[in-house]
Amino acid sequence: MRIVIDAFGGDNAPLEIVKGAACASNEYGVDITLTGNEEAINKVIAENALTFSGDLKIIHTDDVISMDDDPTSILKAHKESSMALAFKELSEDRADAFVSAGSTGAIVVGGTLIVKRIKGVKRPALGSMIPSPGGKPYLLMDMGANAECRPEMLCQFGVMASVYVENVEGIKNPKIGLLNIGTEETKGDPLHQEAYSLLKEAPINFVGNIESREMPKGVCDAVITDGFTGNIALKLMEGTITTMFKLVKKTMMSSFLNKIAALILKKDLYGLKSTLNSSAVGGAPLLGVKKPVIKAHGSSDALAIKNAVRQAINFAERNVIGIISEKLVETGAQE
Amino acid sequence: MRIVIDAFGGDNAPLEIVKGAACASNEYGVDITLTGNEEAINKVIAENALTFSGDLKIIHTDDVISMDDDPTSILKAHKESSMALAFKELSEDRADAFVSAGSTGAIVVGGTLIVKRIKGVKRPALGSMIPSPGGKPYLLMDMGANAECRPEMLCQFGVMASVYVENVEGIKNPKIGLLNIGTEETKGDPLHQEAYSLLKEAPINFVGNIESREMPKGVCDAVITDGFTGNIALKLMEGTITTMFKLVKKTMMSSFLNKIAALILKKDLYGLKSTLNSSAVGGAPLLGVKKPVIKAHGSSDALAIKNAVRQAINFAERNVIGIISEKLVETGAQE
Repeated sequence: MRIVIDAFGGDNAPLEIVKGAACASNEYGVDITLTGNEEAINKVIAENALTFSGDLKIIHTDDVISMDDDPTSILKAHKESSMALAFKELSEDRADAFVSAGSTGAIVVGGTLIVKRIKGVKRPALGSMIPSPGGKPYLLMDMGANAECRPEMLCQFGVMASVYVENVEGIKNPKIGLLNIGTEETKGDPLHQEAYSLLKEAPINFVGNIESREMPKGVCDAVITDGFTGNIALKLMEGTITTMFKLVKKTMMSSFLNKIAALILKKDLYGLKSTLNSSAVGGAPLLGVKKPVIKAHGSSDALAIKNAVRQAINFAERNVIGIISEKLVETGAQE
Repeated sequence: MRIVIDAFGGDNAPLEIVKGAACASNEYGVDITLTGNEEAINKVIAENALTFSGDLKIIHTDDVISMDDDPTSILKAHKESSMALAFKELSEDRADAFVSAGSTGAIVVGGTLIVKRIKGVKRPALGSMIPSPGGKPYLLMDMGANAECRPEMLCQFGVMASVYVENVEGIKNPKIGLLNIGTEETKGDPLHQEAYSLLKEAPINFVGNIESREMPKGVCDAVITDGFTGNIALKLMEGTITTMFKLVKKTMMSSFLNKIAALILKKDLYGLKSTLNSSAVGGAPLLGVKKPVIKAHGSSDALAIKNAVRQAINFAERNVIGIISEKLVETGAQE
């Protein structure tokens, strides 16, 4: 098994990416291909005395696609960027799975147009494993690849999410919910009403509409939504949790006695904070393309990259893409 | 000034509603009309020795529209319900403003079709004052009256929200933002892209797109969104905050030392929790109808009802509806 990693994607590239790649190679015994400036990569390896138990291949390029670049530039202006070359390795079968902490937009464009869609998939979608304060993590999908969705797309997201969660997260017969503004079948706009009807007929364990209030309780294994709502929801949870912890901290610093209490609680509250950190749960799979693609969080450190590689290995080993193909045929999807 | 209050709307009706009405009458010197079962209302007044410094009128009916009833039943099957009769008092000018803690859907239908729209308003919308953990409260609108929106509707929501926040909340030249999945003008689906162009030209202080991550920081005085996204966002914030407090509590109960720390912090953390409680900030104005309508939280207690009446008084006194009419003419709205 060989994982191709964009060594120049993300806020902490290349240092944390290369370190994470080395850890993954040693822990999981996989071969690694790194794309990006070879000199810089070798410098990181030398300075940190990194070793790779699997084979290491470096594909040199000086170009990088940044967060500010138009995502479609991965096809033209930045077709020699570290991310584009990593996609090329994947699509030309010189790697089994792909990991990048770079621009989400570019990963969606590259995945869709370089790796290409599974036959019958209308639009690939990004799922994100969300830590649920009240239970186990769940997959939120689409988290932003498709701002505009049609009902059939939401239905396919449900099927793809179900296969992924069952096979990569190991949850038998996962519960799939549709994010909506009420629990009854007739709630929401026509998009969500029609998506409900389609999901009800799909070969998955569809548990109906889920109100956003219930999401933090972890009532489902995957929550299906359009990319607009999913992106709003994801960032709102992040923003609310961050602001809440700031306020709790402020309260704890507001008097001498409170500060003493804070000292006692510090470690446990930090623990709580870290369990609610999305990046701890792993990367975001791009589902619906022909090979495994994992988008790691932009601020990923070595541990997050190592976890993303673990996810990519499971994704590749467990035939997720083959099963998605079969299930889509069952639901009558056609190119 | 006379406020009509649906005495049988909400989880705590009629007790808390009637108590809140009495408080408001005494504190603000307004006349009150209560709708609902006269015997039950008089019993609450007698048992709690309530007095009203303004005039009190009771309009008797035995019917109530519940959360489970179809909202449109307020026009037919439940046209004699306490809420419907309260709307009738308002629309026939026997009251200056309306307060109910009953079914949101029925309030939207009753407001729109009994009180009727301001000339030029495409669709009335519900705004909710949201406590912002990181700053001052802001108006989120639409919070669920319109699951489907067109760009012109979002633009009108912006104009109405600006007038309301400036005149009722007393914020000069309020900052109005559009909830979107990125800050650039080109972000989001066509609905939000077109709404952006219209809001930019509207006679308001439009500050552009706001990402949901920023909302809890209180960066805007009003955040404009379609009713689907607004409803998802509102309930997600509620759910996240509630679950977070449960987790903090659990952490504090997890060891003997932690419990001691909890004793020290208890009061301050309760204070923090109550500042984040939406119902403390007041009711939700239904903007775009010809007279002031305030929807109080379903779980309102007497204090929340008294605050909602205060809001209704400001709404009526400060000519919000007249100014909305003028501003809509400026933006070229036509019936």
